Amino acid sequence: MSLPDGFYVRRVEEKDFEQVTETLKVLTTVGAIAPESFSKLLKHWNEATVWDEDNSKRIMQYNPIVIMDKRTETIAATGNIFIERKIIHELGLCGHIEDIAVNSNYQGQGLGKLLIDQLVAIGFGYGCYKIILDCDEKNVNFYKKCGFSNAGVEMQIRK
Amino acid sequence: MSLPDGFYVRRVEEKDFEQVTETLKVLTTVGAIAPESFSKLLKHWNEATVWDEDNSKRIMQYNPIVIMDKRTETIAATGNIFIERKIIHELGLCGHIEDIAVNSNYQGQGLGKLLIDQLVAIGFGYGCYKIILDCDEKNVNFYKKCGFSNAGVEMQIRK
Repeated sequence: MSLPDGFYVRRVEEKDFEQVTETLKVLTTVGAIAPESFSKLLKHWNEATVWDEDNSKRIMQYNPIVIMDKRTETIAATGNIFIERKIIHELGLCGHIEDIAVNSNYQGQGLGKLLIDQLVAIGFGYGCYKIILDCDEKNVNFYKKCGFSNAGVEMQIRK
Repeated sequence: MSLPDGFYVRRVEEKDFEQVTETLKVLTTVGAIAPESFSKLLKHWNEATVWDEDNSKRIMQYNPIVIMDKRTETIAATGNIFIERKIIHELGLCGHIEDIAVNSNYQGQGLGKLLIDQLVAIGFGYGCYKIILDCDEKNVNFYKKCGFSNAGVEMQIRK
């Protein structure tokens, strides 16, 4: 599905620092981050690649994107898919969708689904045999509309 | 918890090719993998590091380990934790435990829990604010015994 008029998608850039951290606050604690630390993080994200035996394409480890409102240059939504090279499935690639957040001023416009579609397209474009994500029970139906199905239980441990 | 006598833990090495692929077959499809491709994968896994602003430690992206039976040099269990650098939680680290397999000849000896303990220790050693994994409903109680709790639903999409 394509984006509605007035929006475009791109990779996260340094200038997104304030808006992207603000957008992620709908999701969880972001905390105090210095702009220069954010720049270093993006440098890491832009340099980290995943080995590909065919060497036919550059597979980025992290793929942080934003959906931008063209008119105001506002971040409407952001998300990331990071790519894991495994042994199983003939040294297969698994995509992990992480940290999905839609700006509260842009909710209810279908942008969440478009964001997921874009991240899924990135993962399958690299050749992932599967793409997974973890969500709250209340978001299961949303992800089913995005083509996902239940696969298991997320367990966590914190320090 | 420490390992019982007769076992030790180490990072996966090239010589593990046949045993590690065999052990993973209890989990899922492994497929046809050439030994030289496995070596290239390990090279990638051994080189990929995660940016750390403090620069105080070398954080490995992938941390594949085996529990070895000393007497026979048999792989009793294998698993991996890979490390994701995020924006949230002050550029926090999240650990993802993946591809846990216990050799069928070594099941029922508590090695699964010891494997998870080792992977959790690696993740918290790097400073992860949380460690997550996805499992089947039937394994939830096992992971609760390892200190994990329910966090959400795993969703997947396959090509």
